[in-house]
Amino acid sequence: MIVNNSLDEVKKRDNALTIIKNLVETKGRSSLFDLTGLAGGFIASSSEISLLETYVGPAIFEDAIQEVGKEHMGGEKVLAVNRTSSGILATILSLVSKDSNVVHYLAELPAHPSIPRSCNLVGANYFETDVFEEFSIPNNTSLVVITGSTMDHKVIDEEEFKQIIEMAHAKDIPVMVDDASGARLRTVVFNQAKACDLGADIAITSTDKLMPGPRGGLMSGRAELIDEIKIKVNQFGLEAQPPAVLAMVNGIKNFKEENLIKSFKRKDELYKLLSLKFSNFKKSPTGVMIYPEGLSSEINVPHKLSDDDLAYVFSFILLRDYGIITIPPVSMPGASATIRFELSSSDAVNLDLNSLGKKIVSAFEKLQDIITNEEKCREIVFNS
Amino acid sequence: MIVNNSLDEVKKRDNALTIIKNLVETKGRSSLFDLTGLAGGFIASSSEISLLETYVGPAIFEDAIQEVGKEHMGGEKVLAVNRTSSGILATILSLVSKDSNVVHYLAELPAHPSIPRSCNLVGANYFETDVFEEFSIPNNTSLVVITGSTMDHKVIDEEEFKQIIEMAHAKDIPVMVDDASGARLRTVVFNQAKACDLGADIAITSTDKLMPGPRGGLMSGRAELIDEIKIKVNQFGLEAQPPAVLAMVNGIKNFKEENLIKSFKRKDELYKLLSLKFSNFKKSPTGVMIYPEGLSSEINVPHKLSDDDLAYVFSFILLRDYGIITIPPVSMPGASATIRFELSSSDAVNLDLNSLGKKIVSAFEKLQDIITNEEKCREIVFNS
Repeated sequence: MIVNNSLDEVKKRDNALTIIKNLVETKGRSSLFDLTGLAGGFIASSSEISLLETYVGPAIFEDAIQEVGKEHMGGEKVLAVNRTSSGILATILSLVSKDSNVVHYLAELPAHPSIPRSCNLVGANYFETDVFEEFSIPNNTSLVVITGSTMDHKVIDEEEFKQIIEMAHAKDIPVMVDDASGARLRTVVFNQAKACDLGADIAITSTDKLMPGPRGGLMSGRAELIDEIKIKVNQFGLEAQPPAVLAMVNGIKNFKEENLIKSFKRKDELYKLLSLKFSNFKKSPTGVMIYPEGLSSEINVPHKLSDDDLAYVFSFILLRDYGIITIPPVSMPGASATIRFELSSSDAVNLDLNSLGKKIVSAFEKLQDIITNEEKCREIVFNS
Repeated sequence: MIVNNSLDEVKKRDNALTIIKNLVETKGRSSLFDLTGLAGGFIASSSEISLLETYVGPAIFEDAIQEVGKEHMGGEKVLAVNRTSSGILATILSLVSKDSNVVHYLAELPAHPSIPRSCNLVGANYFETDVFEEFSIPNNTSLVVITGSTMDHKVIDEEEFKQIIEMAHAKDIPVMVDDASGARLRTVVFNQAKACDLGADIAITSTDKLMPGPRGGLMSGRAELIDEIKIKVNQFGLEAQPPAVLAMVNGIKNFKEENLIKSFKRKDELYKLLSLKFSNFKKSPTGVMIYPEGLSSEINVPHKLSDDDLAYVFSFILLRDYGIITIPPVSMPGASATIRFELSSSDAVNLDLNSLGKKIVSAFEKLQDIITNEEKCREIVFNS
């Protein structure tokens, strides 16, 4: 076993960042292809940057984020946070009390770990299900959570979405929607309504998922709840800082629905190419992906690695040898090891898919060559 | 009573940001004088800004922050966090268990609220004292906290600092130093050693306090503990984002010890000017300040405001009518209402002290005129 715990996950991320740094310094930024779908960015003019001071910055950009944020997310008021995870933490700190219940419905397990972790922190009982018929709201429930689209981009059914909100509101329980990628995926590609328009009390999105914003979180919802949550956000240092807020404003302004829709079509092309060689790639809404178990089934040499380890080693080969950034090398602890090739990111929009397909095949061949040597695998993940 | 709870504090901050925005938009940035000592800033070249992407940014700036951060803070490894408060939260989440004790020594009560709040969150028992003779470490203590210099810039005695570290280490208990402003104030102005060089296991500083960095926190310390804390930081979304890390690197590089030392001298001049009119201003290491109680003693008309409310109204007049930014209008909930005029900030370095003194006197006269009218006071704090 190679990646066994959170500390290992931090170490592999540090290694991935070093590889990226070396590639930028020796071969330039153009040698990298960020296909995480999280590339984000930092769009800002120099006159804006000169205003990025502690108290002046937020004054200027606070109004702007209210305006574009509400347009993007719906709701009465928005709040920019350092990350989606910190927004979820703040919401749970504000609304969930010790020993109360939190119930979570999502299209496919598992939930993003920040939700059960935050519940655990306040001593709440947490339940999650991806079976609609099994979803129920017990007594003493303080919060109902809905995930709009999962880490692997599985999208909730809109009818179920509405019904769960109704069930919660019939019992006067607030609903928080984790719409990290869903705020765009659901609305643009699947034509669903915004979470707040469906009645969510609080919705959270990641400003770097499927849009050119910075890593960060944007919450929207009922003004009274946002004000309550903002207190916890300020108390524990969870808010987005002025540079991030500026980049969020510009990221939302620069978000192009047509890129999402274009990638929605181009993924079929890449899927077809890869299917000539592999049988376990799946389509995601805006790209293709392979689960660790799927990758494992592709391997036809004996080895001792876990499925997740295979995914880590494969994605590190893609990064080191081809400059292809996928999520597993760079992710934070607890994230899924599924390898996704997202075609909506700016590096992907004009990428030649034939050439990408060949690189993936060639990286896979290298994977098969080294997996019998666990020492080498460990090295590529932690010290390459 | 005007500012009564955290929600009021959030509202007054929102109002202050609106005033600042209007001033910038109607009269330009030069109409503002940020004397908070927290002005921070965002120093970055355009080539650096083009690298500010989610995964490329941290790769590039992670090495740089390690290098300049260790030079600034000492210690084996540094970790950039979204705010000092979130670094403190992460440290307590990592090192402090339920029902264990946390003891805190500082030069003057009260402690920064993020420390007791985080202890409360994990269910630990928190004790603080500013009487050295009363400080002791009970059984079942998981963390000893030392504040290097308080919110009001009161600096700890270095001998006491060392002795408390020794007491903790004799019992094998880690020491976290909240050196928010102290990392510079203690070392540059008071010639004390860096917290890590004195033996602190973890030290945290605010990168916008008395230096031209962004709002953010920088932790340093023993590599093994930093790695452990980094897990919580990543899990709950507490890390500094790439733009902030870049600005931290440049803020530290641009930190000028001589500005701190110059302000250390200029404060005497301002103090003398103000003492012609007032008897309750005090010197802080790099400026002058007045406690809410002190301000209250200056007033010679009958009124019904609390001491803190007086400080809020006074500081809002300074902001609205003279563009002078002090901490009370813009602070996060729980911060001290003491009004400080910090002379180390970039807006202050070349400010004419005579003119500043006259503005303060004239704002005070306006304060005396309106305090009998609580409605007007409320308006200036929440809706001016």
